[in-house]
Amino acid sequence: MLSVNNVGWLEKEKPVAGPLDAILRPVAVAPCSSDTHTSHGGSGDQKNLILGHEAIGEVVEVGELVTRFKPGDIVVVPCCTPDWLSLGVQGKYNAHDKGLMASFKFLLSKDGVFAEFFHVNQADANLVKLPEGMDMAAALMTVDMMSTGFHGVEQAEIGFGDTVVVIGIGPVGLMAVAGAHLKGAGRLIAVGTRPNSIAVAKEYGATDIVSYKEGDIVEQIMKMTNGEGVDRVIIAGGKADTINQALNMLKPGGIVSNMNYFDASETFEIPAWEWGLGMSNKDIRGGFCPGGALRIEKMLEMIQYNRFDPAKLITHRFEGFDKIEDAFKMMDEKPADMIKPAVFIKWD
Amino acid sequence: MLSVNNVGWLEKEKPVAGPLDAILRPVAVAPCSSDTHTSHGGSGDQKNLILGHEAIGEVVEVGELVTRFKPGDIVVVPCCTPDWLSLGVQGKYNAHDKGLMASFKFLLSKDGVFAEFFHVNQADANLVKLPEGMDMAAALMTVDMMSTGFHGVEQAEIGFGDTVVVIGIGPVGLMAVAGAHLKGAGRLIAVGTRPNSIAVAKEYGATDIVSYKEGDIVEQIMKMTNGEGVDRVIIAGGKADTINQALNMLKPGGIVSNMNYFDASETFEIPAWEWGLGMSNKDIRGGFCPGGALRIEKMLEMIQYNRFDPAKLITHRFEGFDKIEDAFKMMDEKPADMIKPAVFIKWD
Amino acid sequence: MLSVNNVGWLEKEKPVAGPLDAILRPVAVAPCSSDTHTSHGGSGDQKNLILGHEAIGEVVEVGELVTRFKPGDIVVVPCCTPDWLSLGVQGKYNAHDKGLMASFKFLLSKDGVFAEFFHVNQADANLVKLPEGMDMAAALMTVDMMSTGFHGVEQAEIGFGDTVVVIGIGPVGLMAVAGAHLKGAGRLIAVGTRPNSIAVAKEYGATDIVSYKEGDIVEQIMKMTNGEGVDRVIIAGGKADTINQALNMLKPGGIVSNMNYFDASETFEIPAWEWGLGMSNKDIRGGFCPGGALRIEKMLEMIQYNRFDPAKLITHRFEGFDKIEDAFKMMDEKPADMIKPAVFIKWD
Amino acid sequence: MLSVNNVGWLEKEKPVAGPLDAILRPVAVAPCSSDTHTSHGGSGDQKNLILGHEAIGEVVEVGELVTRFKPGDIVVVPCCTPDWLSLGVQGKYNAHDKGLMASFKFLLSKDGVFAEFFHVNQADANLVKLPEGMDMAAALMTVDMMSTGFHGVEQAEIGFGDTVVVIGIGPVGLMAVAGAHLKGAGRLIAVGTRPNSIAVAKEYGATDIVSYKEGDIVEQIMKMTNGEGVDRVIIAGGKADTINQALNMLKPGGIVSNMNYFDASETFEIPAWEWGLGMSNKDIRGGFCPGGALRIEKMLEMIQYNRFDPAKLITHRFEGFDKIEDAFKMMDEKPADMIKPAVFIKWD
Repeated sequence: MLSVNNVGWLEKEKPVAGPLDAILRPVAVAPCSSDTHTSHGGSGDQKNLILGHEAIGEVVEVGELVTRFKPGDIVVVPCCTPDWLSLGVQGKYNAHDKGLMASFKFLLSKDGVFAEFFHVNQADANLVKLPEGMDMAAALMTVDMMSTGFHGVEQAEIGFGDTVVVIGIGPVGLMAVAGAHLKGAGRLIAVGTRPNSIAVAKEYGATDIVSYKEGDIVEQIMKMTNGEGVDRVIIAGGKADTINQALNMLKPGGIVSNMNYFDASETFEIPAWEWGLGMSNKDIRGGFCPGGALRIEKMLEMIQYNRFDPAKLITHRFEGFDKIEDAFKMMDEKPADMIKPAVFIKWD
Repeated sequence: MLSVNNVGWLEKEKPVAGPLDAILRPVAVAPCSSDTHTSHGGSGDQKNLILGHEAIGEVVEVGELVTRFKPGDIVVVPCCTPDWLSLGVQGKYNAHDKGLMASFKFLLSKDGVFAEFFHVNQADANLVKLPEGMDMAAALMTVDMMSTGFHGVEQAEIGFGDTVVVIGIGPVGLMAVAGAHLKGAGRLIAVGTRPNSIAVAKEYGATDIVSYKEGDIVEQIMKMTNGEGVDRVIIAGGKADTINQALNMLKPGGIVSNMNYFDASETFEIPAWEWGLGMSNKDIRGGFCPGGALRIEKMLEMIQYNRFDPAKLITHRFEGFDKIEDAFKMMDEKPADMIKPAVFIKWD
Repeated sequence: MLSVNNVGWLEKEKPVAGPLDAILRPVAVAPCSSDTHTSHGGSGDQKNLILGHEAIGEVVEVGELVTRFKPGDIVVVPCCTPDWLSLGVQGKYNAHDKGLMASFKFLLSKDGVFAEFFHVNQADANLVKLPEGMDMAAALMTVDMMSTGFHGVEQAEIGFGDTVVVIGIGPVGLMAVAGAHLKGAGRLIAVGTRPNSIAVAKEYGATDIVSYKEGDIVEQIMKMTNGEGVDRVIIAGGKADTINQALNMLKPGGIVSNMNYFDASETFEIPAWEWGLGMSNKDIRGGFCPGGALRIEKMLEMIQYNRFDPAKLITHRFEGFDKIEDAFKMMDEKPADMIKPAVFIKWD
Repeated sequence: MLSVNNVGWLEKEKPVAGPLDAILRPVAVAPCSSDTHTSHGGSGDQKNLILGHEAIGEVVEVGELVTRFKPGDIVVVPCCTPDWLSLGVQGKYNAHDKGLMASFKFLLSKDGVFAEFFHVNQADANLVKLPEGMDMAAALMTVDMMSTGFHGVEQAEIGFGDTVVVIGIGPVGLMAVAGAHLKGAGRLIAVGTRPNSIAVAKEYGATDIVSYKEGDIVEQIMKMTNGEGVDRVIIAGGKADTINQALNMLKPGGIVSNMNYFDASETFEIPAWEWGLGMSNKDIRGGFCPGGALRIEKMLEMIQYNRFDPAKLITHRFEGFDKIEDAFKMMDEKPADMIKPAVFIKWD
């Protein structure tokens, strides 16, 4: 990102590893809509910022206090890499180490991973070795897509047999579908329209598909549930009024779990009666995925033990460092058959 | 309530007890702002409705299946009396037995307690004998004020030493102050202006008082906390934008817990950035207090064992059934020195 | 059960429905090891007790206050049917309505379901209509096997990717395997030896099978996990020292969740160091499944939406009321190829 | 500790600070029964180990990566100082960073604080500045006594009005009494005999005192609760069979929360029926207090805001570094009027 709406390559100094850190070069990366969002000025008028925050990398250098990694290791890099020596990680959520979302270092406080070399803070606590024999494409999907989608599921506190709606079936929403299935949802309704996404949603456990194109989604879902509504709604797409839709299709005592990144220009406008005048016991939750190595290790184990295959998200594969730009442009243009592009890189 | 904005006495048939129910006559009652709210049309254009939902009563009749009570028993009556045979009570919250707030029977689905005789459903599950030697004024405060204020505290999931704000120190807010103290809050900031309420707030454990009159409360509280904000905010008063204030003074990962009854005409307008664009892990919760006998039993034990005295809420005491009207009018007019009026009734 | 170790048919009066109750006749029943356990004196020196607590029934009579059911309805009957008007259900667990396990009415406080007619308390709160098109065998497995196995899973609070061990893969253990899979377990180790059970465990999501016959199970599991141990252990079989095994294979901070019904003659003997001298943060939990209609409704939805098929438990099917004795004897003898027998009954 | 049962002074090299660490000298310390326990061989046949793990210190040296502290700062030192770069802190409990209790560094993996200089790992994450004006004696009680006692309370998940028993009212038990009071207990029964401790227990909120000397404590407590038993039992003293007592006085669905450090020679012997044959939903929990700066900060705030005064524990005050030996001997001998001794040290 050279400036707002202007993306291209730029030359920068190779980053330097502090004593606890590591320098990596990317072996697999994926662009994310937060990258394109940032490139269009979503995080303000930035200049000369290297984008990218989803990566598997090869360690090229480690700080003197790093004990678990050495140059040559192939490692999975969480998009959320907290400063574990800050007090912010000692509470319930580690995503806000020194303030709102401050554990999201790439893009927000330093250059990203679409570079020949990139920096990871506190390598021992934040990196995970790629397990032997693990599909790299699947592993790449854990660092943000799966971690974020599963956080939406965790926030939703699904009980066995709950009826769950996932609004939005882009890559994060699809991970939420898979996660809700793997938390014991009964009926699992996915809201979306793209044929590729619908096919994957069904493979991941969606029992019903609802489309905006066939009428108001609240009405459709209330009808499907005989007017009773649903137990949980997970939001992975849409605009501010998606919260209202979620509240309106939810039973009293239910939970709305958001992991959609809303635009700073939006405002939620919720009539008090849609929230039961404050008496409905409908929780509204929303947050950024936790970070750290343990979480990613566990997600990698879910893949190793065949709980599901997140690589199904990847509809387009590119090869070579210089193809990052093509993948990024594809992400920006969102062709109808795309869920997620990924780029695999061989260095010699 | 004869009709909207028109309150007075009316004659009705004595209610009839079903096999599981009881008929009581009131021995202590308190008007509540929900009663006055209803009388002004807050629940629609009702006619000939008996108001009142906070009572201690004497059992005069029990249904044939009631086993724990008999005529003559003096009993504490929760404002929330679920139908325990409905499926709605088998989830996490019992306040919504057959729909939103449907466990709140008085006013919403039948006559209230400001009557010579009133009806309680499922007496065995919903009534509690007044413990011997218990102060009736204190017991009367459990049925709604304490149960509601403490529900706000329960929703807030306070940890030891958390900094907690309670916005609004009417009777429910004061119970939230007492409850937050009794859940281990560290600093406990009460927002309000009435001198009587402030005095009780301090007795109940508030460490700081913030007044709307001395400037923006968010600014004041951010300043008091060195710009860090607070861990929990409990809302017990205010308008729709109180939610925004709460979000703005809250740390990432915090909880807003509402038990204010908002007006159906209000709309929450929350700029997305005030909720961290959906990424802040700030939960927004709000609900109606759970019902049933066990909860009230435990609250009565807290009083018996001197954990605090909820009777401090009662600033005005009336004697005699016919004084209910005076107490109700006082509630409606809210004189500056009033927190809560109560009426004590002797029958012969 | 005529007397201890003496089972046969006996004549009794047809049970009478109270105003809230229902009388049913069985259309599908399954014997359970608690039935055989009881018949051998496990619950004391009982006489002339009708056994059986897993049933689908046809309503033949309802009390005058029952609103949701009428004669002719085919209904699923939870093995745990709380008295919802007792205070014991108002806490976290409803299985102990008036004391330890007191919500388990069949066998413990009245006759069971292996009879021409049987009684269900509080029909509206405890019965569920068999959904149209639902496989009766699958539905029959919800009332105890699935509810109990899933309770073991709920107690274990499994996080995404956790390594989970299920000790014992009789029918309840197999349900725990299925449930742990559906709560996001990563590696899922089942401990057992019977080939039929092992086959079903794998279908239900077990990733590894460990057998007592191949050595100490703690050693095997520690070796499989590189000496680190596991996150959760669910106990569905074994003797008192199974708790020790569970503790010894568990990481600090882990949970042991028991739903094995131990014998009154057993004693747990746990060396303090196996529990980390009290400092290990290893929770030891164990309990009886919650009851009520809502829970079973949700489990039936899981079957309707094809989350998994609990009917795979049923290895032997009998037809006709008089075959209950054969099924019971099979349960008692536990032939090697049996997981669970069931009896289907047509009345004319 | 020179060797088992042989305590005295010894000369050692001054410890060295790694880049993240700090070297402190003690300004206030307290001996703990774990110190005396260790000195008698409770942690094995150790030699030349410096004891002590409760301290307030003055920073004399910081590693080059430490940012929040500098020489001269007076800091509160948690007894539990996790390695925040280990994966063990990324789960629910941070006390087991690299194995059972491994976050307890003093005594277990390095020298303690009864020395002219002692070492603290990861100063930024583990130390807290002594707030201005704070009573040093009260602050000293947070680092182990309050943190441990309150962990026992946290594990017990006390609800408003619950009846709670605390077994053992040494210093940790007294903190549990204070903590249970501050989590909303109703009736709060303390089990102990020492007059000094009883007096403090009452000041901290105990409503009843039960003594071993007046008969079986289970019988006494069952009688006091009309045979119903209690909701929660916190264990802060006793032998292995205290667990049995706790189970026997507990209602189904209750929680036993242990923070007693049992001896490696003990064995829990729990008849299965005392745990409801595995069906009682009585959780048995026990663990080591979490560590880190945030927790201690919050506890210090509770003191600053006058929630209670932990300095009441300190019955004996010593002045001067060389008085540590006297205080230690007192701890070992436990005179009848002692709750906790402390030593305050001035350096020039």
